[in-house]
Amino acid sequence: MEKKKILVLGGGFGGVFAAKSLEKLGRDKVEVELVNGNNYFVFQPLLPEVAASSIHSADAVVPLRQLLRRIQVRQAEVMGIDFEKKNVIVVQGARRVPIDLPYDELIIALGTGVDLDRFPGLPEHALTMKDLADAHRLRTHVIGCLETADVTDEPDVKRQLLSFVVVGGGFSGVETIAEMRELVTRALRYYPNIEDGDVRMTLIEYADRILPTFPADLAAYATRRLRMSGIDVLTGIGTKSATGTAVELTNGTIIPTSTIVATIGNGPHRLVATLGLDLHWARIKTDRYMRVPGHEGVWALGDAALIPLVEDPGENPADYATQTAQFAVREGQQLAANIIANLDGKALKPFAYTSKGSLASLGMSKAVADVYGIKLSGTLAWLLWRGFYLSFLPGFTSKLRVGVNWLVNSVMPPNIVQIQSTPPATRYNHYRKGDRVFEPGMLIDGFYTVIKGRFRLTIDNPETGEHFEKVFGPGEHFGERVLLRSALRTGLVVAQEEGVLLFIAQKDFTRFARAFPFLDNYFKDYIDRTFGGADKAFAPGSTNHKAELERLP
Amino acid sequence: MEKKKILVLGGGFGGVFAAKSLEKLGRDKVEVELVNGNNYFVFQPLLPEVAASSIHSADAVVPLRQLLRRIQVRQAEVMGIDFEKKNVIVVQGARRVPIDLPYDELIIALGTGVDLDRFPGLPEHALTMKDLADAHRLRTHVIGCLETADVTDEPDVKRQLLSFVVVGGGFSGVETIAEMRELVTRALRYYPNIEDGDVRMTLIEYADRILPTFPADLAAYATRRLRMSGIDVLTGIGTKSATGTAVELTNGTIIPTSTIVATIGNGPHRLVATLGLDLHWARIKTDRYMRVPGHEGVWALGDAALIPLVEDPGENPADYATQTAQFAVREGQQLAANIIANLDGKALKPFAYTSKGSLASLGMSKAVADVYGIKLSGTLAWLLWRGFYLSFLPGFTSKLRVGVNWLVNSVMPPNIVQIQSTPPATRYNHYRKGDRVFEPGMLIDGFYTVIKGRFRLTIDNPETGEHFEKVFGPGEHFGERVLLRSALRTGLVVAQEEGVLLFIAQKDFTRFARAFPFLDNYFKDYIDRTFGGADKAFAPGSTNHKAELERLP
Repeated sequence: MEKKKILVLGGGFGGVFAAKSLEKLGRDKVEVELVNGNNYFVFQPLLPEVAASSIHSADAVVPLRQLLRRIQVRQAEVMGIDFEKKNVIVVQGARRVPIDLPYDELIIALGTGVDLDRFPGLPEHALTMKDLADAHRLRTHVIGCLETADVTDEPDVKRQLLSFVVVGGGFSGVETIAEMRELVTRALRYYPNIEDGDVRMTLIEYADRILPTFPADLAAYATRRLRMSGIDVLTGIGTKSATGTAVELTNGTIIPTSTIVATIGNGPHRLVATLGLDLHWARIKTDRYMRVPGHEGVWALGDAALIPLVEDPGENPADYATQTAQFAVREGQQLAANIIANLDGKALKPFAYTSKGSLASLGMSKAVADVYGIKLSGTLAWLLWRGFYLSFLPGFTSKLRVGVNWLVNSVMPPNIVQIQSTPPATRYNHYRKGDRVFEPGMLIDGFYTVIKGRFRLTIDNPETGEHFEKVFGPGEHFGERVLLRSALRTGLVVAQEEGVLLFIAQKDFTRFARAFPFLDNYFKDYIDRTFGGADKAFAPGSTNHKAELERLP
Repeated sequence: MEKKKILVLGGGFGGVFAAKSLEKLGRDKVEVELVNGNNYFVFQPLLPEVAASSIHSADAVVPLRQLLRRIQVRQAEVMGIDFEKKNVIVVQGARRVPIDLPYDELIIALGTGVDLDRFPGLPEHALTMKDLADAHRLRTHVIGCLETADVTDEPDVKRQLLSFVVVGGGFSGVETIAEMRELVTRALRYYPNIEDGDVRMTLIEYADRILPTFPADLAAYATRRLRMSGIDVLTGIGTKSATGTAVELTNGTIIPTSTIVATIGNGPHRLVATLGLDLHWARIKTDRYMRVPGHEGVWALGDAALIPLVEDPGENPADYATQTAQFAVREGQQLAANIIANLDGKALKPFAYTSKGSLASLGMSKAVADVYGIKLSGTLAWLLWRGFYLSFLPGFTSKLRVGVNWLVNSVMPPNIVQIQSTPPATRYNHYRKGDRVFEPGMLIDGFYTVIKGRFRLTIDNPETGEHFEKVFGPGEHFGERVLLRSALRTGLVVAQEEGVLLFIAQKDFTRFARAFPFLDNYFKDYIDRTFGGADKAFAPGSTNHKAELERLP
């Protein structure tokens, strides 16, 4: 009998455990392949520790090939699924040729995505905590803030750099701010010009209390603990909008900050959103056996799926499997058993599981735990937390790596190495009324186009007394001088109302302009038309552009 | 007496040891500040080990603040130096405002840069091994090649992905290819579809032998060792040019490869090149006391400086201090002593030092060593190599971290976690005659402008039998359909001669085009004019563009 081809999309807890169980239960009947965008499994609960540099980035993850020795692992991007033809289309590596992966049974285990669109400015300016790159980015960002705060002479800039905001008081938000607090506290001795009192940490939760999945008394303990370590815990307040320099709350409070972490806004996975499947609460509706109704041979599990625990589920979240690792692991095992049962013509079993409890780390060797109905807090809970996650971490190698990390880190100064990465070439920036986009004396480092709102440019020449001003609206642009030469801004640009700008970095803008010879003329005309005689300091042709041209063979 | 302000530019061996010694010798007389682009010191000799994932990225470096406890460390980018006013201009953090740092004495310890311009295609396609980001990039790239090679069905693509080329047979090139070989060998058991015989590793050295600074017999031993581990060592052959898919040698040989590492082409540091100082062999000429002639209060050391060891130095490299860590450390100490002597009105001492020897790791627990005139090779040399670098690594924490890494790594499977990063939005690609830029069926993922050469586009419609072709020259562009919708290429583009294309990634190109409403019309006209009726499959407006617009507030 030819083996059935089973394709698993997604390498999180659900996908990995489904694949492992399938291989174990049906080695002779099925051929399993797992497709994932990264070549590693992310141990989500340890991401805040990566952000706090308690453990190395690479140690909070496990290579999928090491975890799934007898299963074909394919690092690829899923472009689409043809449910009719039972075919998944992927692209892999640098050669962008779509490849067909036919399947007999398909398991969708893609998890969820982040959707912050309801909060103006949050998609543009907030960091998230979904994957390893996020955790790494947050760590780098926090250390960068300390580096600049230590040497800046501007009190406003220093205040903003030392203010850290986390939006969302769930499990992930609480652990993230607790770990950030610990990192900053431990790192401060290397930053002689920063006092502990200069640092401000804020946790914002829309509900009346943090940690909604925990009993109220444990949540209260956690709140006290966080406050004791110097974190402002704001509950019953929502987040309204964000910019590159501040976050605005629903009560009108404005908190200056360069660091906003959003742990809210679960949306469907980017691909799941386009599949035309029946979604509810951004999750794929399945039956109690984890089959996707109306699509033969398609199954879903984990955070991506809405799996009923009862016969007639309603709008009560308790009617469905919760989105935790514990559930995903059991779902994977049950789903594998169901697929094999199905192949064998046996009866499927509905998914059933009761949570064994929850744990949340509060930093500084404290935690809260609610396990098998027993409530714990403090150091004992923290030891339980570490022990539990170490045991839960798949693979001996990973356990050893994380264990060694924890040991080394406990006797060592914090690792404040900042491995920088290049910011994106084009990005959207959100501004509130009155925000400065740039001011005289700043380096010209990019080009701006107005997407939304109005922005006023003012140029004053202190020597000649000349004054120039112009308001830019959607579709208009400023900062063309970036093309002409590297120099300092002479103008001040201020948002006249809430607005969005598209920023294009100097190097990329110069290259782009060069792709279109006619743009050169366009800019010459535009500059004449817009500024008249106000700014005569334009040099003909861009030095950067020229330098690049000359360098080329 | 007011303390003299001493500014050190650069946090490598030279800068760090100069700063440390100054603080020790002249605590009451001088105030030292060290400026570096990164907040860490890079232990260069361990970079190949990072590339091979034997040690964690963050463990091959030491935070400068931990290394220099009593010295102000400033993470900033140096924009320029005003030698007249004794002022250094820097930019730090996200606020791009130039800041003045006045000095009494200035130490230039910026090291060297990479200059590959003599080799067409190498600047665009070769990875380098200068800093931590390079090592990290190489590691990620190699693992990415294994991932795709394991799952591709195209033999040519597989061959290219499994061919690794290192240009330059010096110390860095030898250690890099040896470590890459070890990583691939150890990782292969996780890639079931790759045989060891599929892997090709090539080291290319222009001179007659590798490791020119070592005695000939040790170099011969190293060559044998590398060959035994399956590395082609080609000597007496130069590199002519490179593309994204191959490297061409001076003897006409073409080696298909996706991975080219260049360890050749030392040039001046980007900033040093613009200072108007007297350079020779891309290094700043100093006197025997490490003063820069003609510039009061300016000193230079380390790889950036050309320090004479004799009274009348000529064109013999042996007349000058060599560019190694050993020398840089002694230079730093001597320079510090000279600055203090100068302040005290005492006589300066000329720099003098004799190398204690060299060590090079060959992977697989083998090395060559030439220490105090004693020549060693094999495992003993390798143990010496490890011991020496561990002792040389500054700071107890770093020693412990690297030691733990080595221990853990020796008992563990290799860490094949691939932490991906976004490729740059705009990049130059070099092509040889006959190279395919893209072909029908590939995903449209960017836009191309011809910088140099001619490229032929052919579109054949198998259904209608229609045929279209056009040759594009400098200033012309193709791939506009990227703006219109996400789809597959219908055309084939082939380089008609050696050429260069500027590539702009889809997302950024779409955003850019949107910055200029008139570009929309331009493209509509252009497409009509260029293609006539050959390709009717254009949809009006870009879906990506629209989706982005709709998403915005």
